[in-house]
Amino acid sequence: MDAIEIETVAEATPSDPVLIEGLPGVGHVGKLAAEYLLEEFESELVRRVYADEFPPQVSIDDEGVAELVCAEFHAVETEGRDLLVLTGDHQAGSNAGHYHLTEAFLDVATELGTDRLFALGGVPTGELIEEYHVLGAVTDADLKGDLTDAGVEFRDDEPAGGIVGVSGLLLGLGRRRGLDAACLMGETSGYLVDPKSARAVLEVLESVLGFELDYESLEDRAEEMEEVVGKIQEMQNQSAQVPTDDDLRYIG
Amino acid sequence: MDAIEIETVAEATPSDPVLIEGLPGVGHVGKLAAEYLLEEFESELVRRVYADEFPPQVSIDDEGVAELVCAEFHAVETEGRDLLVLTGDHQAGSNAGHYHLTEAFLDVATELGTDRLFALGGVPTGELIEEYHVLGAVTDADLKGDLTDAGVEFRDDEPAGGIVGVSGLLLGLGRRRGLDAACLMGETSGYLVDPKSARAVLEVLESVLGFELDYESLEDRAEEMEEVVGKIQEMQNQSAQVPTDDDLRYIG
Amino acid sequence: MDAIEIETVAEATPSDPVLIEGLPGVGHVGKLAAEYLLEEFESELVRRVYADEFPPQVSIDDEGVAELVCAEFHAVETEGRDLLVLTGDHQAGSNAGHYHLTEAFLDVATELGTDRLFALGGVPTGELIEEYHVLGAVTDADLKGDLTDAGVEFRDDEPAGGIVGVSGLLLGLGRRRGLDAACLMGETSGYLVDPKSARAVLEVLESVLGFELDYESLEDRAEEMEEVVGKIQEMQNQSAQVPTDDDLRYIG
Amino acid sequence: MDAIEIETVAEATPSDPVLIEGLPGVGHVGKLAAEYLLEEFESELVRRVYADEFPPQVSIDDEGVAELVCAEFHAVETEGRDLLVLTGDHQAGSNAGHYHLTEAFLDVATELGTDRLFALGGVPTGELIEEYHVLGAVTDADLKGDLTDAGVEFRDDEPAGGIVGVSGLLLGLGRRRGLDAACLMGETSGYLVDPKSARAVLEVLESVLGFELDYESLEDRAEEMEEVVGKIQEMQNQSAQVPTDDDLRYIG
Repeated sequence: MDAIEIETVAEATPSDPVLIEGLPGVGHVGKLAAEYLLEEFESELVRRVYADEFPPQVSIDDEGVAELVCAEFHAVETEGRDLLVLTGDHQAGSNAGHYHLTEAFLDVATELGTDRLFALGGVPTGELIEEYHVLGAVTDADLKGDLTDAGVEFRDDEPAGGIVGVSGLLLGLGRRRGLDAACLMGETSGYLVDPKSARAVLEVLESVLGFELDYESLEDRAEEMEEVVGKIQEMQNQSAQVPTDDDLRYIG
Repeated sequence: MDAIEIETVAEATPSDPVLIEGLPGVGHVGKLAAEYLLEEFESELVRRVYADEFPPQVSIDDEGVAELVCAEFHAVETEGRDLLVLTGDHQAGSNAGHYHLTEAFLDVATELGTDRLFALGGVPTGELIEEYHVLGAVTDADLKGDLTDAGVEFRDDEPAGGIVGVSGLLLGLGRRRGLDAACLMGETSGYLVDPKSARAVLEVLESVLGFELDYESLEDRAEEMEEVVGKIQEMQNQSAQVPTDDDLRYIG
Repeated sequence: MDAIEIETVAEATPSDPVLIEGLPGVGHVGKLAAEYLLEEFESELVRRVYADEFPPQVSIDDEGVAELVCAEFHAVETEGRDLLVLTGDHQAGSNAGHYHLTEAFLDVATELGTDRLFALGGVPTGELIEEYHVLGAVTDADLKGDLTDAGVEFRDDEPAGGIVGVSGLLLGLGRRRGLDAACLMGETSGYLVDPKSARAVLEVLESVLGFELDYESLEDRAEEMEEVVGKIQEMQNQSAQVPTDDDLRYIG
Repeated sequence: MDAIEIETVAEATPSDPVLIEGLPGVGHVGKLAAEYLLEEFESELVRRVYADEFPPQVSIDDEGVAELVCAEFHAVETEGRDLLVLTGDHQAGSNAGHYHLTEAFLDVATELGTDRLFALGGVPTGELIEEYHVLGAVTDADLKGDLTDAGVEFRDDEPAGGIVGVSGLLLGLGRRRGLDAACLMGETSGYLVDPKSARAVLEVLESVLGFELDYESLEDRAEEMEEVVGKIQEMQNQSAQVPTDDDLRYIG
């Protein structure tokens, strides 16, 4: 196998598609959002990208069949813009691996006619979120107008640590190629998988790209997570009331 | 030395051999099983594979002679199918190393006429095993029939974390080459070397490949391990009865 | 992207410039000093160096625009020698990456007419500094005269651990190319960003290269740091007076 | 710089030299022994080996001059066999780096006429040593006779973990090149730099290679280490007599 191999699964001819990237990251916000697009719209798997910088691993499907770790491009038709949705379960395992992989992703996207892309992700706030804002970053200040209209916030020098991984490099390397790229980062506590943050990000895409989503099944997942959060809070409250061993030691 | 070097130790002409891989992993199940085949049948070392991704290390044999870390292919004749048994003491030290090494293994196997392979390993359950099941994964759903008949279980999306290392990649990369590959994973606690789990895996191979094994010496090892387990449990029971310092602190 | 890419941002024709390197390191002494030169003098960004050994990351500027991690060369005119100032936010992520990146830096510097260089950094003392000395290392003992006159100290076999990272390699690889290179290391506690140590280093450069700096804004930063240090000391004093849980345990 | 660069410092014409390797390792036994040969005999630095797998670092000599990390070959004349002594302060930073570097070392040694080599090192016993034995490993069982006569011990399958690093690979890769190679491992506690273990190893070389050493200065270092050991033991005895906080807690 070469360091990176691109497998053509189907010959797709999407019309002027927008790349949407949602690989694993903070709160799995980007991954949840990208996968939700695949659930809600008709989609066709068009490319697989294998890389020796991915973990040496196969996943096992519900038939017991092994599939080599890869990233996947799906052609998606919506009532608005056509999409090319990039998903997967892994990022690269080294600095150089991230660069090589992102270049390969950009090669595929360009070959399929993309000149605009959205990298989706989460930005950790460290506390539970009441109102879900979406933070933005772009490769060109001219791109901010539409996004600001759709509710995206641009804050000076935020996120402070920059954007790491494939999402960051899609902007950094995409800009060097002259592509119009934006990163949409849903605020999220950073502690849990966060479907509500994914919804906030998707709502921006709806507005900007002209399609509509029904959030029923995402709401279901969000409610499940709420229950989990509720239970955790309950446990914390209980443990706050019951004196711990350490408390006892100093009281007695 | 090149990144990977293949040394021809003997010119073997196995007839349509099946590759059996047993490198170190969970419970050393795969390694125990593969080495047991070499103990029980006539075998001939045919290839050594050296790699700069292996640890920089030599082992010392009982003559004080140093041998560079490598993986070994042995040609094995049985009353059923001929085998090509792949063993060794190490896996690669990086993601890319795993991919390169597995490709080299597949090259050797293909060159020696193999188009079917079994990767052997263990799947950790986290608790001591009463009844040893063997979990399976395949490159093609059609391969499941024979294995199911031999008692192998296929469970939806299990093992949950997929299969990592050379065993996983033999399926992932083997599938891309069009080989028929299966992974047989003996359930094992994951805490100890587990000869009983290795036996469970070997019994599947007996049934599928048409040879018979006498498990006497593997039973001896299993009994040794039972004694070890027994002693550990005894020690745990004793320490459970004797109050520890921590217990005393809160009683007194 | 190639492993390393050099982008020409402006065609500069500095006259016989001296390279000043200030990448992140102990106490951020080198980085502070180099960036202070850019603040105080007219400067022009002339080259960007991208590398796949840098972290896979973009920074976000105050316009929300993403910039790929890179190192930057700035042409700086002073009333003394012309300078080529090398700054950035990162070092390489592997041994080999450090070597490759430093070679690229030397290539750029040589192409722009440099045959003399100063690597700036800090040397940790482990305690708060009263009087800021600057320790030196050179590629040729003949270079010590000027530096000693400017107050730089050369101590046998110090720093004991040698000099690591790009600063060290600029000397090690620069020497192999026949360049005159010196490392100026401001003493610093090693615990905090240290503008006073940066000033000590800059004062050496003033003397050796014939320019003058006004330290007003650096003094401001130094005072901010003094306040931080003061608050830390206050907190330490308070916590020394209040008995801790551990104290109480043994008193009671 | 290439991945590995070999610098010819002097044109040496040693006569049929034996390579002696002493890089850093357990108890610094090999390094101490190799450096002692350079102290005691006339030697000439003939080659430097630079590698981008070495740490990105320069050392500073007693003149304040920076030297890039490297390994060095010294031609040494003795009243017995000529020697080629390989020393340095570092090993490589990755698996592949160890392999590449060792191949380069073997290239240099072969070019300079070597077909026999001794890798020197220590083998950790975990306890203070009364009588210093030297353990051996060879590339060919025929090499054991001379060494056994010189007091070297060969024990079945020892050292159990094999031999790692450059010493191990000099045997593993040397054997593949048809060189006669042996590893001499002085027993050492593994906790401290051990000049006595280095002496035990050197005494084997004296006997096998026909030269004589005066151990005066090595004895001095050994005595210094004895004092260090003595002080540590004293401190341990004292701390054993004084009850600790933990003791007090459970007594009171």
